[in-house]
Amino acid sequence: MFAKCLENVRNTEPVIHNITNYVTVNDVANVILACGGSPIMSDEAEDIEDITSVCGGLHINIGTLHKTGIEGMFRAGRRANALGHPVLLDPVGAGASALRTDTALSLMNELRLCAVRGNISEIRTLAKGSGTTRGVDADAADAVTEDSLDKAVEFVRRFSRQAGCIIAVTGSIDLISDGARCYVIRNGRPEMRKVTGTGCQLSGIMTAYLTANPDHPLEAAAAAACVMGLAGEIAWDRMQDGDGNAAYRNRIIDAVYNMTGEELEKGAKYELR
Amino acid sequence: MFAKCLENVRNTEPVIHNITNYVTVNDVANVILACGGSPIMSDEAEDIEDITSVCGGLHINIGTLHKTGIEGMFRAGRRANALGHPVLLDPVGAGASALRTDTALSLMNELRLCAVRGNISEIRTLAKGSGTTRGVDADAADAVTEDSLDKAVEFVRRFSRQAGCIIAVTGSIDLISDGARCYVIRNGRPEMRKVTGTGCQLSGIMTAYLTANPDHPLEAAAAAACVMGLAGEIAWDRMQDGDGNAAYRNRIIDAVYNMTGEELEKGAKYELR
Amino acid sequence: MFAKCLENVRNTEPVIHNITNYVTVNDVANVILACGGSPIMSDEAEDIEDITSVCGGLHINIGTLHKTGIEGMFRAGRRANALGHPVLLDPVGAGASALRTDTALSLMNELRLCAVRGNISEIRTLAKGSGTTRGVDADAADAVTEDSLDKAVEFVRRFSRQAGCIIAVTGSIDLISDGARCYVIRNGRPEMRKVTGTGCQLSGIMTAYLTANPDHPLEAAAAAACVMGLAGEIAWDRMQDGDGNAAYRNRIIDAVYNMTGEELEKGAKYELR
Repeated sequence: MFAKCLENVRNTEPVIHNITNYVTVNDVANVILACGGSPIMSDEAEDIEDITSVCGGLHINIGTLHKTGIEGMFRAGRRANALGHPVLLDPVGAGASALRTDTALSLMNELRLCAVRGNISEIRTLAKGSGTTRGVDADAADAVTEDSLDKAVEFVRRFSRQAGCIIAVTGSIDLISDGARCYVIRNGRPEMRKVTGTGCQLSGIMTAYLTANPDHPLEAAAAAACVMGLAGEIAWDRMQDGDGNAAYRNRIIDAVYNMTGEELEKGAKYELR
Repeated sequence: MFAKCLENVRNTEPVIHNITNYVTVNDVANVILACGGSPIMSDEAEDIEDITSVCGGLHINIGTLHKTGIEGMFRAGRRANALGHPVLLDPVGAGASALRTDTALSLMNELRLCAVRGNISEIRTLAKGSGTTRGVDADAADAVTEDSLDKAVEFVRRFSRQAGCIIAVTGSIDLISDGARCYVIRNGRPEMRKVTGTGCQLSGIMTAYLTANPDHPLEAAAAAACVMGLAGEIAWDRMQDGDGNAAYRNRIIDAVYNMTGEELEKGAKYELR
Repeated sequence: MFAKCLENVRNTEPVIHNITNYVTVNDVANVILACGGSPIMSDEAEDIEDITSVCGGLHINIGTLHKTGIEGMFRAGRRANALGHPVLLDPVGAGASALRTDTALSLMNELRLCAVRGNISEIRTLAKGSGTTRGVDADAADAVTEDSLDKAVEFVRRFSRQAGCIIAVTGSIDLISDGARCYVIRNGRPEMRKVTGTGCQLSGIMTAYLTANPDHPLEAAAAAACVMGLAGEIAWDRMQDGDGNAAYRNRIIDAVYNMTGEELEKGAKYELR
């Protein structure tokens, strides 16, 4: 199934509209190309509807959020919704500032999202802020470890049902749920945290996978997370004496570029709960 | 001649003012350094005239156009015109949105441009929009291939005369005309499309070449296109097992950095029509 | 001492708030990770105080200054001052435009800076503009060479006393003074000028070092300059046939990533005046 997801991206070359931060935008563009998609960037409110209309999917990332850019996110999102394009939100820094938390929550409330991808702190912030009266288990706030896994899976599943979209929590263990099933993924390397923007890159890849696999969004999202994690493993194996995080960054994108469906099926480490 | 153009860049180290998109701006800066120029970036309207005044050439790229940035493009362009600096326009996405098409056409109408460099779709959009009553051959809209070459050359030549500046259409075959002559260039590799911003990079290099070779702008523009394409070929030959588009990106810039005039003369594949 | 400074960064992982230009921001993020810190970027005035509050140090760089971004620089700076966080200013392009010069001077006047790091032209501009009636020796305007060294040291020392913060002038010889003592550092390679943003990267590293070594700011700033220069030397030794400025850029960051305290002590080339 994951191989099929990968091949669908390579065969359809989905065009992805990215409204993203200026820190990691170049890597996001190159990794979308590496996985088989085609990236376009535009964040000007008066440009954004035209651009989204020529794309197949929309990726919104609030990593360097500007107040003047928020309107464009909504306009692009509404247009993408009208066109039936998948929309993915990466709520970078939700919880670290009020503006980011509020903007992410508004985007979740006013747009029909296909998926939200973030780290556990960001997702926990959104779950708390969404006004559920059931509360959110504080334990789920902790890093997802083998010990806290059961509770974390339950948290992600519940928040996915509540939010009405796929929730992807990524970290040393990735949890990706559509409210019913939950993929638990153990690909990746801890050193990936030393490369800026591997999360943003995964959001870009995931949007391409969601766009190219409209009938199987959960599998597409899980496949994308396995691609990124496995690329981190393959890239690490190619590291040479003297290489550091800059070489690693390049090698990760290269591993995405060269990944085959067979390699993905063989290397993906996941269970379905 | 091309060797001389290259050496003029290396010897004069032209300072290039870039108003460009935030996606590929770092690669544009590094490739301008690689070819022998010196890049400066500024897009704030109140900063831009001072900056352009300390430069030798101006490169305007609308890849992530903001409405608030348009005034600065005009102010920089008018100042560069007053100072006699060459101005190059890269109309990224013209045809994909009304804002981009309109802005590119206004820049062409109100500034005295030295060159416009884009892909065939962007250039076709500008040619249509410029209000010619002779019309533009729809066949020229197609990708430039050996079969459509004669018509495409005629289209580029005619649009160059009409626009009053060099028109550079780049793709698998590059066509660069000053209205009289037209260079047909066959350097490059198809894999260059898998690296984001190779077109933006070429625009940066071309501006440096135009600035350092004021007496031979057509040759300078053609030399720049050969440099970029040849760098893509040299870089491809240096690819190793496991390398992908991130490694390729670095190797292309490295090939520009190491290119000699002799290498350029030997590797340039062009004819003059 | 320098080894201790390095280890303090690696052990405390200081979180650094960067308000910086969009040209070199990705390299700044990766080099801060490489040296052991953790970068966050935010330049929106309404976001910036929240973000600075979760950080340990603030790095302000005016490389692509926007008028709309200036308010945020002051708000972040005042908040960082209130929290006792070190603030470093990189006055990119001071002297090249009135907006940059004026903004840099205002930031120096209204914020309590820990350090200002720039090239000799930028620092000279600030020294002139600060309204000293003693004047600034015009000779100090020249590049810092062995011949002009004595005068340059005196200039930097005097301006540091006047400005009330560390002044770091970097170039082929680096001069870093707190008004009393002055480090004269001879690490680095001339080829580093061919990589865009090595100065911005040093400013990022220096902010991390200042944050992790609050009791020894002068040593921390000097150690950071040695780290960057030594990384440039190590990276150069690793260059292979066909490598250029793109490979060099990656190798420099990799050398920062792999540098040990022992290596730094052994490779640092400095004298204290």
